[in-house]
Amino acid sequence: MVRYAKRMEQLTQSDIGDLLKLIAQPDIISFAGGLPAAELFPVEQLRQACDAVLDQIGQVACQYSSTEGFPALREKIAQRMKDKNNIETDADHILITSGSQQGLDFAGRVFLDKGDVVLMESPSYLGAINAFKGCEPTFLEVPTDDGGMNVEALEKILSTTENVKMIYVIPDFQNPTGRTWTLERRQKFMEVVNRYEIPVIEDNPYGELRFENDTLPALKSMDPKGLVVYLGTFSKILVPGYRLGWVCASDEILSMFNFIKQGADLQTPTVTQLEVNQFMEMFDLDEHVDVIRETYRHRRDVMMEAMETYFPKEVKFTHPDGGLFTWVELPDYINSRDMAVQCLEKKVAYVPGDSFFPNGGKYNCFRMNYSGMPDDKIVAGIQAIAEVIRANLK
Amino acid sequence: MVRYAKRMEQLTQSDIGDLLKLIAQPDIISFAGGLPAAELFPVEQLRQACDAVLDQIGQVACQYSSTEGFPALREKIAQRMKDKNNIETDADHILITSGSQQGLDFAGRVFLDKGDVVLMESPSYLGAINAFKGCEPTFLEVPTDDGGMNVEALEKILSTTENVKMIYVIPDFQNPTGRTWTLERRQKFMEVVNRYEIPVIEDNPYGELRFENDTLPALKSMDPKGLVVYLGTFSKILVPGYRLGWVCASDEILSMFNFIKQGADLQTPTVTQLEVNQFMEMFDLDEHVDVIRETYRHRRDVMMEAMETYFPKEVKFTHPDGGLFTWVELPDYINSRDMAVQCLEKKVAYVPGDSFFPNGGKYNCFRMNYSGMPDDKIVAGIQAIAEVIRANLK
Repeated sequence: MVRYAKRMEQLTQSDIGDLLKLIAQPDIISFAGGLPAAELFPVEQLRQACDAVLDQIGQVACQYSSTEGFPALREKIAQRMKDKNNIETDADHILITSGSQQGLDFAGRVFLDKGDVVLMESPSYLGAINAFKGCEPTFLEVPTDDGGMNVEALEKILSTTENVKMIYVIPDFQNPTGRTWTLERRQKFMEVVNRYEIPVIEDNPYGELRFENDTLPALKSMDPKGLVVYLGTFSKILVPGYRLGWVCASDEILSMFNFIKQGADLQTPTVTQLEVNQFMEMFDLDEHVDVIRETYRHRRDVMMEAMETYFPKEVKFTHPDGGLFTWVELPDYINSRDMAVQCLEKKVAYVPGDSFFPNGGKYNCFRMNYSGMPDDKIVAGIQAIAEVIRANLK
Repeated sequence: MVRYAKRMEQLTQSDIGDLLKLIAQPDIISFAGGLPAAELFPVEQLRQACDAVLDQIGQVACQYSSTEGFPALREKIAQRMKDKNNIETDADHILITSGSQQGLDFAGRVFLDKGDVVLMESPSYLGAINAFKGCEPTFLEVPTDDGGMNVEALEKILSTTENVKMIYVIPDFQNPTGRTWTLERRQKFMEVVNRYEIPVIEDNPYGELRFENDTLPALKSMDPKGLVVYLGTFSKILVPGYRLGWVCASDEILSMFNFIKQGADLQTPTVTQLEVNQFMEMFDLDEHVDVIRETYRHRRDVMMEAMETYFPKEVKFTHPDGGLFTWVELPDYINSRDMAVQCLEKKVAYVPGDSFFPNGGKYNCFRMNYSGMPDDKIVAGIQAIAEVIRANLK
């Protein structure tokens, strides 16, 4: 009889995969994914970049290359982190990964033994929960409000809990809530982190997708002890289908990620790294980001307006300044999983909120994505969800 | 103070990475890597395939896609496994991975808890050892000779050892020895495996690179109980820089690999999958394999002849029927690590053999690759190594 590792018990008990498969019907209005708008992908520019790479350095593109990643791409990433996030770094402190999901997986493997404690915002990104579960840690949720993580609560946990090995956070346009931490909260958080010297995984896939107000400094830019592991990705600013992300960390920590990368898949594909590097040499990535930012801002507005118009007043939702998601809270007695099934009957989908709590138990919330659907579908979808909510009100 | 997971102790203690970096000098004659011959890559054909994909289905290529992989590519792989290896399977039993290295990493995570036992040929592929180490197993080496794994020794281990969770083997043109299991050994092995019901990881990156004699049936083709997890890859038959491999396994086992893949990196890049699929629709992969097979056969011949001519008679080496590697055994008293440093001074490199023994301790062997160097460099490199060996003879 085949016996699996114990970690598989935790990984197979979620039923979210089944739901997401149901959602993947072609005729559905889906607010469930985190899909960028495919009609905005710079496909023709990428085609020209690919052509140039295979034409000029095709043998290099097709061959094995280093575990760390293509040097010119790592330089461009380091420069971009300086320009956009005020993070002082260089190519030597960047590891190219297969999307930032791989950075999450590696973070777990670098820091977490079975039973170790990982702290997260409550709620937090389900893909991170899923990645960390493979290391069988204990999850502790830190209370979080509209300003970010509650630092007093964090400090209380740190002062009373053994074996806290890392803290996972998404300070900008959080997944799933769309919330952004205030400057004050970031400073206080880093003050506590520096005191306790706990590694922080700062996941920032959406930071460049800010619709209004000024960019706030990344935690990594307030990191004198080199405790912050910053995860970035091209998935939301360029295309996700190339699966290119990166880890930026201090020397020793990054060397640990490199060891894991070596065993995990040797290296990220050479060809995709060279092509995205070539794209950035031939074209202006900032121009492209401007285009998607405007589109997503508009769609955010359409969704916010539709929710204000059609949702009953008992329903609360966040007003994100950027990113891809808003978070909806229903009255306590409505179960968003049951309601998801009713919405699917009307061909509309979202992700039920309980999956975003590592220890489960909160059933009256759900996550909505506004980047992937055109205006008319956003309005029609919100109207349909509003009807279902009304039918569930007491 | 930052504390890492315990697995990092095992992963960071090897110094082979330092050696491989030394070797990566541009002016070196390297027999160290497993590099395919870059000059044979079908770069122009791949360029046309990429062009077609981004021209015709660019938005799909740039978007997220399923964890399992692109259906048309999985169908082609299943068909190829039928045609080449007589394995009855279909697209539903294929998961696309980032090279077969990722399949190795996943195998460890699916089956191995800390302290569980994994069995391997002695010696075996160092990348597999490295991947499994992340799960902190106990490695047991099964004696192996020119005919393959010693099945009596295997059975003795299985009948006396608890917690054997998987057996990792490379029956065709093994890495590092170049050896191929006989038909009889394969049958006996599967008879024992079926009796004990232990999962087998059959790693077959080189199977199609056979220079002479008939193809022998894959273990996966003698697998009535669905115990064999077959790992394949495009790295050695097409190009490694796209990082495309696959896992073929029975329903339940494959679903476990899918769970791990989801948390590890969501999916293999959409764009590379579509491009290799397109390449296989537009061009004849078999024709390309014929070309590289002929070249590698020739290079094998050149290396064998040079070793017979120049190596002292005290040195033994294998005569592979295919694949990329031959395995050299020196007299007991010569340390191949020390000799590697002496060879590097003459600008020639190989991989010292001790890295291929999971429990270490055997220092008089080394692995030689013949696929990556042209004829003149093979001869010059062998002459240089022969000189160093002579200087070390007692």
